[in-house]
Amino acid sequence: MNSSAAQTNIETTADGQLKHFLSTSNHSRETLTQILDLADSFISFGKREIKKVPLLRGKTVVNLFFEPSTRTRTTFEIAAKRLSADVINLNASRMSTSKGESILDTVYTLEAMHVDMFVVRDGASGTAELIARHLPDDVRVINAGDGRHAHPTQAMLDMFTIRHYKGDFEKLTVAIVGDILHSRVARSQIQALRVLGVKEIRVIGPKTLIPTKIESMGVVPCYDMDKGLDGVDAILMLRLQHERMEGQQIPSKQEYFYRFGLTSRRVALAASNAIVMHPGPINRGLEISSNVADGPQSVILPQVTNGIAVRMAIMSLLMGGQHSSGGAK
Amino acid sequence: MNSSAAQTNIETTADGQLKHFLSTSNHSRETLTQILDLADSFISFGKREIKKVPLLRGKTVVNLFFEPSTRTRTTFEIAAKRLSADVINLNASRMSTSKGESILDTVYTLEAMHVDMFVVRDGASGTAELIARHLPDDVRVINAGDGRHAHPTQAMLDMFTIRHYKGDFEKLTVAIVGDILHSRVARSQIQALRVLGVKEIRVIGPKTLIPTKIESMGVVPCYDMDKGLDGVDAILMLRLQHERMEGQQIPSKQEYFYRFGLTSRRVALAASNAIVMHPGPINRGLEISSNVADGPQSVILPQVTNGIAVRMAIMSLLMGGQHSSGGAK
Amino acid sequence: MNSSAAQTNIETTADGQLKHFLSTSNHSRETLTQILDLADSFISFGKREIKKVPLLRGKTVVNLFFEPSTRTRTTFEIAAKRLSADVINLNASRMSTSKGESILDTVYTLEAMHVDMFVVRDGASGTAELIARHLPDDVRVINAGDGRHAHPTQAMLDMFTIRHYKGDFEKLTVAIVGDILHSRVARSQIQALRVLGVKEIRVIGPKTLIPTKIESMGVVPCYDMDKGLDGVDAILMLRLQHERMEGQQIPSKQEYFYRFGLTSRRVALAASNAIVMHPGPINRGLEISSNVADGPQSVILPQVTNGIAVRMAIMSLLMGGQHSSGGAK
Repeated sequence: MNSSAAQTNIETTADGQLKHFLSTSNHSRETLTQILDLADSFISFGKREIKKVPLLRGKTVVNLFFEPSTRTRTTFEIAAKRLSADVINLNASRMSTSKGESILDTVYTLEAMHVDMFVVRDGASGTAELIARHLPDDVRVINAGDGRHAHPTQAMLDMFTIRHYKGDFEKLTVAIVGDILHSRVARSQIQALRVLGVKEIRVIGPKTLIPTKIESMGVVPCYDMDKGLDGVDAILMLRLQHERMEGQQIPSKQEYFYRFGLTSRRVALAASNAIVMHPGPINRGLEISSNVADGPQSVILPQVTNGIAVRMAIMSLLMGGQHSSGGAK
Repeated sequence: MNSSAAQTNIETTADGQLKHFLSTSNHSRETLTQILDLADSFISFGKREIKKVPLLRGKTVVNLFFEPSTRTRTTFEIAAKRLSADVINLNASRMSTSKGESILDTVYTLEAMHVDMFVVRDGASGTAELIARHLPDDVRVINAGDGRHAHPTQAMLDMFTIRHYKGDFEKLTVAIVGDILHSRVARSQIQALRVLGVKEIRVIGPKTLIPTKIESMGVVPCYDMDKGLDGVDAILMLRLQHERMEGQQIPSKQEYFYRFGLTSRRVALAASNAIVMHPGPINRGLEISSNVADGPQSVILPQVTNGIAVRMAIMSLLMGGQHSSGGAK
Repeated sequence: MNSSAAQTNIETTADGQLKHFLSTSNHSRETLTQILDLADSFISFGKREIKKVPLLRGKTVVNLFFEPSTRTRTTFEIAAKRLSADVINLNASRMSTSKGESILDTVYTLEAMHVDMFVVRDGASGTAELIARHLPDDVRVINAGDGRHAHPTQAMLDMFTIRHYKGDFEKLTVAIVGDILHSRVARSQIQALRVLGVKEIRVIGPKTLIPTKIESMGVVPCYDMDKGLDGVDAILMLRLQHERMEGQQIPSKQEYFYRFGLTSRRVALAASNAIVMHPGPINRGLEISSNVADGPQSVILPQVTNGIAVRMAIMSLLMGGQHSSGGAK
């Protein structure tokens, strides 16, 4: 472990252990691999008769969602309960807006109740980190999506899925397709893929939805989907937000699907055993055709299964370092 | 067990064990009696100091309510928690409508998280069965009310209550009173009473609220409440939906109560020890007078108590068959 | 114990044990002190690795909130879960208004599910007591705030905090500042402070927000904040409700803060080691300046921590008397 770097990195403890999980960019390849390895051990777990381990027994986990997401909240709730934690769901926007309390006052109040871990989602970039910076040393934060910035647990379940089906990252070419510009998922995927040393990352989409100078992130932009998919090992589709349809960024649903929808014909352009991924929920007929989503190369549902295991792994690792971090508390 | 029938019945496993509970019509008298007998053992349980057994420990139960019902959701949540399950409450309408995901995509996603049992409520008939038909072999579904079609756990707690107070079904005459036409409760009650071999079923209500040809269900329609109640052993009142009052089906509240409200005078027309039942919440002064609802022959609150025991019994039986069903999963 | 008084007091059992916690006025100094002493033993608990004791294992606690309050509900949910209870959260307004069920019918229905304890919050005064009067002998009720009447668990956490920092009540002068007229917190604080034998209680605020004849409650009214704070040991700020700002009771925010806002200058008028308290959430710059709220004499966050311990203590004491009360049930 690089302990000098660790000291300036909010996401690790002074002795280099995982403390918060706010991004996929602030962690070493060893750390991300450690998460994937531990998640492997939780995969078989989901099929056991008793899907419960006492790793977080007596711990209080708060799902603090300033931006509502039933789906993501449910994955964290299930993961925490299978680790035997007590889980409190807070639709925090209601709490704070109805009485004018600030985010930090809300967090300080909850922390005073001896909450051990916050799972934070917000529409603004940086909220999870802001919270992490203001908490005592023994409280943990997981970023469950902040604005357009990052969605690191989604990216990690994607990494798990890629490794599970395709093996060694260093031999793989991966394509991310869709609205790269607004996607926190894409940003976290790109960072994770780079840390893990993937051979090549292509980002595919209309020019209006790919940031200029994206090459500086170490990826190859592609505005022609057929060319971009050529020979890739994994196709990572993004969800197209409906609100984008009404602006000037996309001409029409038909036009979008014609140019960037994933069809069987296009899947055939990739490597013969390429996998098709999507963070869900899918827009059938918009960014992906139903026969591809439900087809033999789709691993969209395994991604969901893997998501529980990956979140259990991250939560376990964070709490494992809870008492070695010393206590300002 | 009739194993050839079982193979075509979605509600049982290949070897005849209870798999889903979607209706009261697809089960044999033996199965319904087995549920009632097991529920008997859970009745004393509610009075114990520690109201918890580990029968569903480590299992994940999702209350998937597309149609909100705090009351019914609470009964399933309490029953599942007393069986030591982890319970996830999902107000699914929000999830699906806000992002345009279909019901089946929602269910597939949840199933991929290794949910063991879905408790489903929806305003449309057939939703619970639709879901059951699309899940792997080791996942269980309970219908908590689907449109006008069925509400089988409500009917089973009613059967439990009747048997508890009145004994042998074959000697009993039962009246169901109110809006038969729109009631999933009435439909499930009639089917359960027939499977259990009750002597006579009368349905009482205005002609506008009793289906034509109801005789084909094996019941006797009655448009005069005084005549219909003559000598019955159990009076099963239905809740009148307020929205019916504004249409042409009922002239006025006063008129409805005058013709079909359950008063002390009318209770006296039944057998001397007849019981008065209602699924709740009651409309005092509309379908039932307060002094009857709170009177000595009312078993409305015992019905609620029995509802927890019956739901615990059904959940236990379904999960008991989980691992004998083999696994497509 | 005074058993003749106990028999007429709804909040205690026939043999004088704590049964409900609806007020701070119906309990003896011994009982309130017993709560504070037990809470003391739960304080260290929040810092343990496993924050869970089985005192309420197998018990069902319902948070029955007719008036929404995420913050208060969360404190009770965390307290109950750390005692190993099963917790059901009910946004009861939805349940009752959507189907027209009365509060008592709702409570009777829940009680029939063998709920052991209700935590009740309502906008109307007296709701928790109304419910307590209609439940069987072995069911417990905690008042989590009823209209302008009482908020006794908040007052008890305040007493705990005062005792923790300042010691013997009989030597202390305490000031309560703000909207005394509409505050259930102030009412419960005054009653608790009197039962516990505090030396002097001052209430400070504009004449429009202090009840006439408040002296009959055993307190000294003060319309000049500087004078009122002179030499006090504890300053208990109240939250100013925003809706008061728009009426005729307060001229403007600026004017209110100028006359009754707690600033560093005013804190200096109190005893040198005086503590500053607030039930939260705070309105920074309205009733309290940020530098005081976050300053060295502020114990606002410790109040929150203490709130969990005090609520665990009250819940434990209530349930400890559950089976000695005999059973109408």
